[in-house]
Amino acid sequence: MEKKISVLPGDGIGPEVVASAVRVLQVIGKRFNHTFHLSYATIGGAAIDQHNNPLPDETIEMCENSDAVLLGAVGGPKWDNNSPELRPEKGLLRIRKHFDLFANLRPVKAFPSLLDASPLKREVAENVDLMIVRELTGGVYFGEPRMRTENGAIDTTVYSTAEVERIVENAFELARLRGGKLCSVDKANVLETSRLWREVVEAKKKEYPDVQVEHNLVDSVAMKLITNPGHYDVVVTENMFGDILSDEASVITGSLGVLPSASIRGDNFGLYEPVHGSAPEIAGQGVANPAATILSVAMMLQYSFGLKEEAAEIERAVSAVFDDGYFTADLASDGSRILSTNEWTDKVINEIDT
Amino acid sequence: MEKKISVLPGDGIGPEVVASAVRVLQVIGKRFNHTFHLSYATIGGAAIDQHNNPLPDETIEMCENSDAVLLGAVGGPKWDNNSPELRPEKGLLRIRKHFDLFANLRPVKAFPSLLDASPLKREVAENVDLMIVRELTGGVYFGEPRMRTENGAIDTTVYSTAEVERIVENAFELARLRGGKLCSVDKANVLETSRLWREVVEAKKKEYPDVQVEHNLVDSVAMKLITNPGHYDVVVTENMFGDILSDEASVITGSLGVLPSASIRGDNFGLYEPVHGSAPEIAGQGVANPAATILSVAMMLQYSFGLKEEAAEIERAVSAVFDDGYFTADLASDGSRILSTNEWTDKVINEIDT
Ligand SMILES: CC(C)[C@H](C(=O)O)[C@@H](O)C(=O)O
Ligand SMILES: CC(C)[C@H](C(=O)O)[C@@H](O)C(=O)O
Repeated sequence: MEKKISVLPGDGIGPEVVASAVRVLQVIGKRFNHTFHLSYATIGGAAIDQHNNPLPDETIEMCENSDAVLLGAVGGPKWDNNSPELRPEKGLLRIRKHFDLFANLRPVKAFPSLLDASPLKREVAENVDLMIVRELTGGVYFGEPRMRTENGAIDTTVYSTAEVERIVENAFELARLRGGKLCSVDKANVLETSRLWREVVEAKKKEYPDVQVEHNLVDSVAMKLITNPGHYDVVVTENMFGDILSDEASVITGSLGVLPSASIRGDNFGLYEPVHGSAPEIAGQGVANPAATILSVAMMLQYSFGLKEEAAEIERAVSAVFDDGYFTADLASDGSRILSTNEWTDKVINEIDT
Repeated sequence: MEKKISVLPGDGIGPEVVASAVRVLQVIGKRFNHTFHLSYATIGGAAIDQHNNPLPDETIEMCENSDAVLLGAVGGPKWDNNSPELRPEKGLLRIRKHFDLFANLRPVKAFPSLLDASPLKREVAENVDLMIVRELTGGVYFGEPRMRTENGAIDTTVYSTAEVERIVENAFELARLRGGKLCSVDKANVLETSRLWREVVEAKKKEYPDVQVEHNLVDSVAMKLITNPGHYDVVVTENMFGDILSDEASVITGSLGVLPSASIRGDNFGLYEPVHGSAPEIAGQGVANPAATILSVAMMLQYSFGLKEEAAEIERAVSAVFDDGYFTADLASDGSRILSTNEWTDKVINEIDT
C-alpha cells in the first residue's frame, strides 16, 4: 500500500512526539511492506510565527493532497494574548471545519501497568474500555450569531437533523464493531437541540437492533464516568458536551499521556492527534511521552487505511513496553524505569522488529 | 428569632428526607430559642398529580410569604413521558427563575469517615473542601430563541454583563470568607459569552486584591477536578458548565448522599435542597440518607438567617454521627452500622441535644 500523509508537528512537545510516531510508522511500513510518503507543514503557533496565520493556505493545500493528517499539538503561552483569529487553537478549529471532520473518536482504555497513575481506585478504573464519539464541527462551536450585544453577549447552539444523523450513525457503527452498547448523552430536559438529538437516536436505533441504546443526561454522565466508568462502551454526544466529557474521561485511567484521537468524516480521510496538549513547560527536553501520538498513528492505520493488523501491532508493542516497566517521566512510579522520548520509542520499535 | 419557612417535599424520597431535616430544624430551634413556622406545599410530580402544574400558583404565593424554602427532590419515571411543560423539573427551573435565585452554591467537602465510598484514591480525595458557585438563572437554560427550525434546532446562550457581574461578585465574596482562592471557569477560546465572563472577572478582581484568581477552561477543570480536586477553593461558572461540573464534583468524595445546596439571590431569601435526586427506586422504604437535606437546613440557617453557630452545630452533629460509624444503607462499608432514615436522624438529634 502507498499513502500520502501530511505531518503537522505544531507547538511545544508536538515536534518531539510526532518525530517518534513517524519513526514507528516507518518501521511498520517496512515490516508490512507499505510506503508512506510524508510531507510537513505548520499549524498553530508555529504557523502564526512563520505565516501570521494559524492555518496557512499551503498547509490546507498539502492536507488536501494527502490521505491522512498526523498532528502534534498546538498552543503555548507565547500566543496567549493574541487576538482570537491569531491564536493557535483557531488553526485546529479551522482544519476540523475545512475538512468536515465531524466525528472525533476518543478511546479510553485502562493499561493495567498504568493504573497506579490513576486518581481512581484500581477496582473502579481497571475495566475501562470506552470510546467517546464527539460531534466536532457543529453546535455552539460554530453556530451563529456569536457576538457581543448592547448589554452582554450571545452564543448559539445549532444542529441540523442531518448533522445529528451522521454522527449518531457513526457511533452506532462503532458500537456494533465494539461491545454493542451505545450511550447517547444530551440535556433533553432543558435544550431543544438535545430533544432533536434524542429523537434522531430513537429513530436510528431501529436500524441497529443489535446495539443496546441508553439515553443519559450530561450531568449524570459526568458523575457516572467517575463512579462507574466500566459501564460505558460507546458514548456519543454533541460538540461542547463531548469536549468536557472526553477530557474528563481522559484522566480516569491515569493514562492521559497515552490517549490517541481520530477526527474523521464519512470517507477514509482523517486527522490523528494525541489528546494531550503542547505541554510547553517540558518542550525541547526530550522527556515527552510519545505513546499517545504513536497510538494515534495506529488509529490512522486502522480508520484511514483499513490496516487493522498493523494498528494492532503498534498497540501490542506499546502495551508490551509498559508491561516491561518502561515509562517516560510523566508516568513514573515506584520501581519503573524512566526513559527519554527517544529511548522509549526505541523500545517500541524493537518490540515491533522482533 | 422567628422565621417562616416553606417546605416543598416533592417526589420520591423527598418527603422522607425533608421530614428528617424538619425534625433537626425544630430541635435547633428549641436549643437556640428560635421559632420556625413551617408551611407545606407541592412541587414537581406531586404538584402535577394534584394541580396539573409542576409549580402551582399557591406554592409560589406561599414561598413569597416565607423567609426561605426547603425543597426535597423532584422527578420520577411516572412523569418521564409528560410534555416538557408538565415535567417535574420544570417546577424547579421555574421556581429558580421566579425568585431570581441566581447563585447556586454547592459545597463539596470530604468527610474522612466516608472516603471508603469514594471512587478516588484516598490521598486524592481527602483534602477536598471546595464550593462550586453556579450561575442559575441565565445562559442556555433560559436564552431565546430556543426552538425547532426548518431543518434542525437551536438553543441560545445569553448573558448580560450585569448577570455575570452579580454572580462573579457573589463568588468573590465567598472566596474572601473561605480560602481566598477563586477559579473562574469558561471556554473563552471558543465562546463569546465566555470572553465576556472572563473580562468581568478581570475587572472585578481589582476590588478583591485579597483573593487569588485563576481562569481555567471548562475541559481542563473537568480533568483537574478528578486529578487534583484539593486544588480548588471557590469555583465560579455559568449555568450549563456549572450543572456538569457540580455534578462531577459531587461524586469525588464519595459523599453524594450528604451534599447540600443553596440557591440564593442578593438578599436573604433562598431555596435549600439536597444535591441528590428523588431516587424513586428506594422511595417509601425509610432507608434514604437524610444527611444532605439536614445539611441543607444548616446552609439555610447560615445564608438566609445568619445563624452561623446553629449551622455549625448541625454540621458538627452530622460529622460526629459518621465518625461514630453510623450510616444509612447508601454509605455502607465493612464494619459500619446501617441505620434507617429515622434512626440515623435520631442519632443526629441526640448529638445536638447533649
Ligand atoms: C483548543 C480547543 C478549541 C479544543 C476544543 O475545545 O475543541 C480542545 O479543547 C479539544 O478538545 O481539542
Ligand atoms: C433537573 C435539571 C433541569 C436541573 C438542572 O439542570 O439545573 C438539575 O440537573 C440540577 O442541577 O438541579
